Amino acid sequence: MEAAERLARQIAFIVELDRLKRVLRQSLVTGDGRRENSAEHSWHLALMAATLAEYAAPGVDVGRATRMVLLHDVVEIDAGDTFAYDLAGQAGRVERETRAAARIFGLLPPDQAASLAALWREFEAGESADARFAVALDRLQPMLQNLHTEGGTWQIHGVTLDRVLVRAAPIREASPALWDYVTRLLEEAAASGLLAAGPEGAA
Amino acid sequence: MEAAERLARQIAFIVELDRLKRVLRQSLVTGDGRRENSAEHSWHLALMAATLAEYAAPGVDVGRATRMVLLHDVVEIDAGDTFAYDLAGQAGRVERETRAAARIFGLLPPDQAASLAALWREFEAGESADARFAVALDRLQPMLQNLHTEGGTWQIHGVTLDRVLVRAAPIREASPALWDYVTRLLEEAAASGLLAAGPEGAA
Repeated sequence: MEAAERLARQIAFIVELDRLKRVLRQSLVTGDGRRENSAEHSWHLALMAATLAEYAAPGVDVGRATRMVLLHDVVEIDAGDTFAYDLAGQAGRVERETRAAARIFGLLPPDQAASLAALWREFEAGESADARFAVALDRLQPMLQNLHTEGGTWQIHGVTLDRVLVRAAPIREASPALWDYVTRLLEEAAASGLLAAGPEGAA
Repeated sequence: MEAAERLARQIAFIVELDRLKRVLRQSLVTGDGRRENSAEHSWHLALMAATLAEYAAPGVDVGRATRMVLLHDVVEIDAGDTFAYDLAGQAGRVERETRAAARIFGLLPPDQAASLAALWREFEAGESADARFAVALDRLQPMLQNLHTEGGTWQIHGVTLDRVLVRAAPIREASPALWDYVTRLLEEAAASGLLAAGPEGAA
C-alpha cells in the first residue's frame, strides 16, 4: 500500500470515530441529567486507567489496557449500545458487534485493522490480565455515576444489588483493593435506598 | 497517607472528571450539528495518537503523548474552553488554567497531583517531542471536523486560511508527512470555499 493511501485510510477511520459521540448509553452525566455518550465514557475510563494504575495486577500493561478502553465501544457506531441489564438486547450483541468490528476497523490499513480488532476481541473475552483491568474500569465507572446521580440507571431501571454484584465481579478478579471499596459503596447505596436490595432483600 | 484515604482521593478526582463532559468547544460533531465537549474531543485525540503513532518523530513515547491528550483539557472544568481564534479570551487563559490545575489535580494524592500537573504543563509548553506530537493531534482534529461539517467553525467565525496555517504550524514540527497532508487539505478547503482565503486573498 502506497504511503498516501495508507494515510488516507487512517484519516478515514479517524473521521468515522466522530460518530461514536452520537451513541448514547443509559448512564447519566453527573449534574447534567443527559445521557452519556460512548466516546466521553471511553475517555473517562482511559483517565481512570492512569489514575488507578497502581491497583492493576502485577505485570499488567496499563498502556495496552488504556488502548483497550479507548476502542472498546467503537463497534457501537454500527451496533449501538446495549444496556448491561437488557437481557433481550444482549442476545444478538456479539454477532452485531463482530460485523461492526469488521467494517469499522477494516477502514484502516490491514496491519492496523488486524491489531485493533485483536485488541477489541481481547477486551471482549476479558481473560488476559490487561483485559481484566480494562473490564474492571468499565464496570466501576457507571457505579460511580449512579452514586452521584441519585441512583441513576439503578433507579430508572429498577436494578437490584444482587444483579449489580454479579456485574461487578470482574472488579474482584482485577483488584482486591478496588473490590473492597466497591462492595462497601454498594452496601451503602443499598442501605440509603439508591439501590434496591433485590429479590432476597425484598422477600 | 493511609491507603483508604489515597483511594478516596483518587475516586474524588475521577468523579470530578465527569464535569469535563459539560464543557463545550466551538467545534461541531460530524452529522449532528451540536457542539463537541472537551471529554469526547480528548478521547478522539487519544485514538488519533494510536492510529497515527507511526508519524511521530523517532523517540516519541506515544503512551505518554496519549496521557497528555487525555488530560490536556481537564483544567477547563474550572477555566472553560477558550476558542483558539478568540484573542481577547486567550489573554487571561494561562492564569485561569494554572489556578484550575492546582485545584483539580490537587484532589489527587500529592505524588499523582505533581506528576499529572507536570504532564499538563509539558503539553502546554509544547516543547518536548512527546508534547509536540500531542499538540499536533490537537490542531489536526478540529480541521478534520471542519472539513466534514461544511466548514464548521471556519465558516461560523470567519476564520481565514492564513490564520489556520499559523495555528497548524505545530503539525509541521511534529511530522513532515502529516504536514504535507494538512497543507493539501487546507488548500482544497480554501479552493472550495469552506475556508476563506484571508486578508491577502480577499484583497
